[in-house]
Amino acid sequence: VSDLDDLTQRLREFTTARDWEQFHDPKSLILALVGEMGELAELFQWLPADSALARSLEEPLRTRVGEELSDVLLYLLRLADVLGVDLAEAATVKLSNSEDRFRPEDFQGTAPVKG
Amino acid sequence: VSDLDDLTQRLREFTTARDWEQFHDPKSLILALVGEMGELAELFQWLPADSALARSLEEPLRTRVGEELSDVLLYLLRLADVLGVDLAEAATVKLSNSEDRFRPEDFQGTAPVKG
Amino acid sequence: VSDLDDLTQRLREFTTARDWEQFHDPKSLILALVGEMGELAELFQWLPADSALARSLEEPLRTRVGEELSDVLLYLLRLADVLGVDLAEAATVKLSNSEDRFRPEDFQGTAPVKG
Amino acid sequence: VSDLDDLTQRLREFTTARDWEQFHDPKSLILALVGEMGELAELFQWLPADSALARSLEEPLRTRVGEELSDVLLYLLRLADVLGVDLAEAATVKLSNSEDRFRPEDFQGTAPVKG
Repeated sequence: VSDLDDLTQRLREFTTARDWEQFHDPKSLILALVGEMGELAELFQWLPADSALARSLEEPLRTRVGEELSDVLLYLLRLADVLGVDLAEAATVKLSNSEDRFRPEDFQGTAPVKG
Repeated sequence: VSDLDDLTQRLREFTTARDWEQFHDPKSLILALVGEMGELAELFQWLPADSALARSLEEPLRTRVGEELSDVLLYLLRLADVLGVDLAEAATVKLSNSEDRFRPEDFQGTAPVKG
Repeated sequence: VSDLDDLTQRLREFTTARDWEQFHDPKSLILALVGEMGELAELFQWLPADSALARSLEEPLRTRVGEELSDVLLYLLRLADVLGVDLAEAATVKLSNSEDRFRPEDFQGTAPVKG
Repeated sequence: VSDLDDLTQRLREFTTARDWEQFHDPKSLILALVGEMGELAELFQWLPADSALARSLEEPLRTRVGEELSDVLLYLLRLADVLGVDLAEAATVKLSNSEDRFRPEDFQGTAPVKG
């Protein structure tokens, strides 16, 4: 059983039970995703880079981080469902492409540069 | 077997094989997530709201959308792994909380308002 | 007198008076900008596309929108100041480039497509 | 003369000359803003936190950073114009509020915590 499929199915039922399909067009869901991403960013913005990880492992931040990561995942799954994308399949293909494109011998310790 | 765990494990090996752990601190990964979210937003920004879904089902947009959704998922899983969060578990808990908090009888056809 | 310069100067004094320069490295400020952008997105996410503008003109949304737009501007100006960018000058150059690149006769009623 | 007003006016003429008002509803412009913010984030994502500033002062990154900051500003001004918000005024009020809310004696060297 796929956990992505399970969550997607539960989200679909959650949406239908509240008659919220009317709000879940692609552009609105992307804005919701941006909102949750913003909440995630706020949790880390003022933490020093070299202690951010350690700080995020302590409560109450640890729980808050889990919640915001979850919100991003849930809206992402809802968006993929609305768009008819099999996200587990698409991500597997994308990762395979990256494995081919960024060959370990060419990118050892070197981050790819964005245009 | 969990597909989230599978992807997470493959991403960890992908990172290690390229010696990229040094780049994957929380703040950097959130910025990467923001970058991918931005690419997703760009695909939809000028599409009319009422035809965005139909347009996204046609190629070449359909493939591009699957890629960008995948990039968001992959960085999200990588971030959760670095932060030590079991994302499938956390998302299940969060969704259960939302099911309780937004009772169908109270939110029928009504979107929750953000502060 | 430039209003961008005025705001930039006041922000610099605001920061110094609180000894907050230590938090204002580029990556942290971008995360703060993402946080404010997320709050802006949340105000609009569930509004129907064709009535979003009219709804945003009514209180209390009107005031909230002004506040979030302001927060985005203020962090953007602070970031530009830290990075040593003259934003009024840079934006003028960028807009001139766009005026040349997207010639009215070629892009009449046609939105530029992102890759 | 206000440089924010100047840029806003030029953007309005730029939009009208291309018949692009049809694309510039609030939700679409926020998505465009998110897209530009994403491009800004990508420029910094893999730079070490403690050398990001120095690196951004070197070409070609310096020019790219100026362009992306400009794109964010330009879409923000366009959005404020569409929404009928006087952004210079709103930002001045917001900054005054922050000056009062975060008193230097209470927040000396202490970043405000987000919920």
